[in-house]
Amino acid sequence: MQNNPGLLLDLYELTMAAGYFERKVQLRASFDLFVRRLPKHRSFLVAAGLENGLKFLEKFSFTNQDIDFLKQKGIFKDDFLHYLSALRFSGDVYALPEGSIFFSGEPVLRVSAPILEAQLVESYLLNVINLATTICSKAARVVMAAKGTGVYDFSLRRTQGPDAGMAAARSSYIAGCAGTSNVLAGALYNIPLAGTMAHSFIMSFRDELESFRIYASTFPDSTTLLVDTYDYRKGIQNAISVAKELEVEGHKLRAIRLDSGNLASISKLARSSLDAHGLRYVKILASGNLDEYKIERLLGARAMIDNFGVGTNMGVSSDAPYLDIIYKLSQIDDLEGNAYPVMKLSQGKVTYPGKKQVFRIANTRCAYLKDIIGLEGEKVAGKPLLEKVMENGKIVKPSPSIKNLRSFMRDNLKALPARYKKLQGRALYPVMLSQGLKELVSRIKQQIKYRG
Amino acid sequence: MQNNPGLLLDLYELTMAAGYFERKVQLRASFDLFVRRLPKHRSFLVAAGLENGLKFLEKFSFTNQDIDFLKQKGIFKDDFLHYLSALRFSGDVYALPEGSIFFSGEPVLRVSAPILEAQLVESYLLNVINLATTICSKAARVVMAAKGTGVYDFSLRRTQGPDAGMAAARSSYIAGCAGTSNVLAGALYNIPLAGTMAHSFIMSFRDELESFRIYASTFPDSTTLLVDTYDYRKGIQNAISVAKELEVEGHKLRAIRLDSGNLASISKLARSSLDAHGLRYVKILASGNLDEYKIERLLGARAMIDNFGVGTNMGVSSDAPYLDIIYKLSQIDDLEGNAYPVMKLSQGKVTYPGKKQVFRIANTRCAYLKDIIGLEGEKVAGKPLLEKVMENGKIVKPSPSIKNLRSFMRDNLKALPARYKKLQGRALYPVMLSQGLKELVSRIKQQIKYRG
Repeated sequence: MQNNPGLLLDLYELTMAAGYFERKVQLRASFDLFVRRLPKHRSFLVAAGLENGLKFLEKFSFTNQDIDFLKQKGIFKDDFLHYLSALRFSGDVYALPEGSIFFSGEPVLRVSAPILEAQLVESYLLNVINLATTICSKAARVVMAAKGTGVYDFSLRRTQGPDAGMAAARSSYIAGCAGTSNVLAGALYNIPLAGTMAHSFIMSFRDELESFRIYASTFPDSTTLLVDTYDYRKGIQNAISVAKELEVEGHKLRAIRLDSGNLASISKLARSSLDAHGLRYVKILASGNLDEYKIERLLGARAMIDNFGVGTNMGVSSDAPYLDIIYKLSQIDDLEGNAYPVMKLSQGKVTYPGKKQVFRIANTRCAYLKDIIGLEGEKVAGKPLLEKVMENGKIVKPSPSIKNLRSFMRDNLKALPARYKKLQGRALYPVMLSQGLKELVSRIKQQIKYRG
Repeated sequence: MQNNPGLLLDLYELTMAAGYFERKVQLRASFDLFVRRLPKHRSFLVAAGLENGLKFLEKFSFTNQDIDFLKQKGIFKDDFLHYLSALRFSGDVYALPEGSIFFSGEPVLRVSAPILEAQLVESYLLNVINLATTICSKAARVVMAAKGTGVYDFSLRRTQGPDAGMAAARSSYIAGCAGTSNVLAGALYNIPLAGTMAHSFIMSFRDELESFRIYASTFPDSTTLLVDTYDYRKGIQNAISVAKELEVEGHKLRAIRLDSGNLASISKLARSSLDAHGLRYVKILASGNLDEYKIERLLGARAMIDNFGVGTNMGVSSDAPYLDIIYKLSQIDDLEGNAYPVMKLSQGKVTYPGKKQVFRIANTRCAYLKDIIGLEGEKVAGKPLLEKVMENGKIVKPSPSIKNLRSFMRDNLKALPARYKKLQGRALYPVMLSQGLKELVSRIKQQIKYRG
């Protein structure tokens, strides 16, 4: 991630800021960050990326170098650039906690700040929330499909950039993965690390057995042997030989890894061969272009797999690599404290006005029944989900530990009824508008007739 | 991007490195980075990301903090960690220049280095080459579809992370886009910047006309007015009023922007309204979930659009968000200078042995006819494409300017026959193996029978 992302924004944010600056009057604005429509086959999403978003807001600023670059563009006036050079983000943020399940139209984040500031942080906030939420939502599906079998994130090599590799490790762990292969993510985020070996290691030795022995002697208690480089039958036999040699030394082979071919049938062969040699404790890890559908089929075929290594499809959310996520103005407050809720009527792109809250209604057994999008302060049944996380530009609610986020997500998912958790098709979770919001919408629609 | 990406690797790269270290003998290895299969509907790809990859290799190292973290994991021996703490990448790299068209199976990069080093840099290299190549290849399609109409990258808010936003701006500009909205990319990569305004700007004013006037007074010679916030017919009329007011002051409205609805018909209405008021010089920019297919349809429907703003679909390459890109061992050289070419025979995942070169054969009018993957040093017809870019860990061929990369890419694309440039379906460009490589493959297959 860029160290100083002040300039990591869209040019129009700066030109609009210059326009706001020109007007002199500093109005306060509220923006909602939300997903307009869910991707195909998705009945819910899982919020993530808030920690990164808030860190960005806290350090948002322009360096002298940034200002020099803008000056040299020749389109901004000096007094505006001078203003930018001292600018910090001073707004308030309400947000869904990371790991929250949410649905289309519900604000994930609400930013209230002087409009110039709120506008400048738009693209970066959208970017980091979109990335983390996209992957967390995909990973939740993979973890659900695995039904308790461990899933490890192996996606670093194919994520869309290093930042995405870091976000994939963190988001997938929050979603319930058991760990990651990404060492930096392990170090920075305190996520368990997992790894095996590559075909190249084996191919660099005279023969497979020699490569297995060297590796096992280096990591006698944590070796996973990849058995399909030349021929998986022979590979399994070689792994068994090394496992027996380790036993003599008082060690245990941890696992073998299958990375190609018919994983269901090969895993059964591997399991029975291992068991026949008294190696019930040796686990079987499978990898190779896996996703939630393949995992579901493998488990359906009673594959004997103890852990899945899932890479690309989870790390880029390959079937839904982005969300229809937007950041829309919902209210202007003037200096006298008058509120002007606003909405947009562009074809197919309508937004809801006002400062909003999301209320979730559960039954007595804590199963989610429906959500109501209402107005802030409105009396609505259900639990309000948006929490104040930033005030006057300072984080007021520190991010929970990643372990807590993970168990929060798990509890959340448990409370979502099964019909919304199917991998295919889509069940529409009920999200209604409160009486107050409905009335506001029709009032604003009336007013807009006179604004165009 | 992480400042010090030493630990941004997969755990197995470190454990394999420990295994290589254990063996003592430091063999030299060659790895090919290539794409196994092209995505659906793609007949070619465009190489990008080399500059980032080489910068990474040049500064590759572990900090004391990294070493401390690894020590604390408790699985690595002290002498190995001590070795890592002083490690730098000392290898050689051959690569396709950025902007090169290439096909499946052809090495994009060949790394030759002590095997431990070559293995440690695998994931990061794959990551940055995959990202930039994925987006450059997608952007080439968008630019082809636009047939000379300008395309601007508006993807920052939806790319998979900040790094991806930077790569999207750079890769799409190399592919022929006219500019980007990403200000940091404009500043760091010297890419033209473009911007318009958001609906929020308009909605923060009493009425649309007032918002247009304020914006135009701030940027009297570079204003693009967004006309669809409330009603595009009224919006176009308001833009015309402001354009006429600007004319009085000696300025010219640059453009209007359409962001929703039927862009073909609205653009025609806008064009005729503008022209009827003597505003032929005012351009029309269209945006809103565009991709190569929609652009083709719009131009087919004779839309009156001068520039396209293309975001998400290009910035995440939404129909093919990753490549089947891999990094595979192809040869081991021992300390006596003996070469041992190697290959992998896993089901569906076969690789080619030896240090290779890609030769491209063109006809007398410079149109590409076919490629031949041969061995380094082999006498093969055609132009060798892989160039030496790094020697002993130092960059020996600095990256060309981005303008040169862009024109190299344009010439490259011109030389590719039209049948490979269709947006749908796939024409298979002929890629053959040289006599020398064929012979090597059959020799190695024989040997492997005795290695499993």
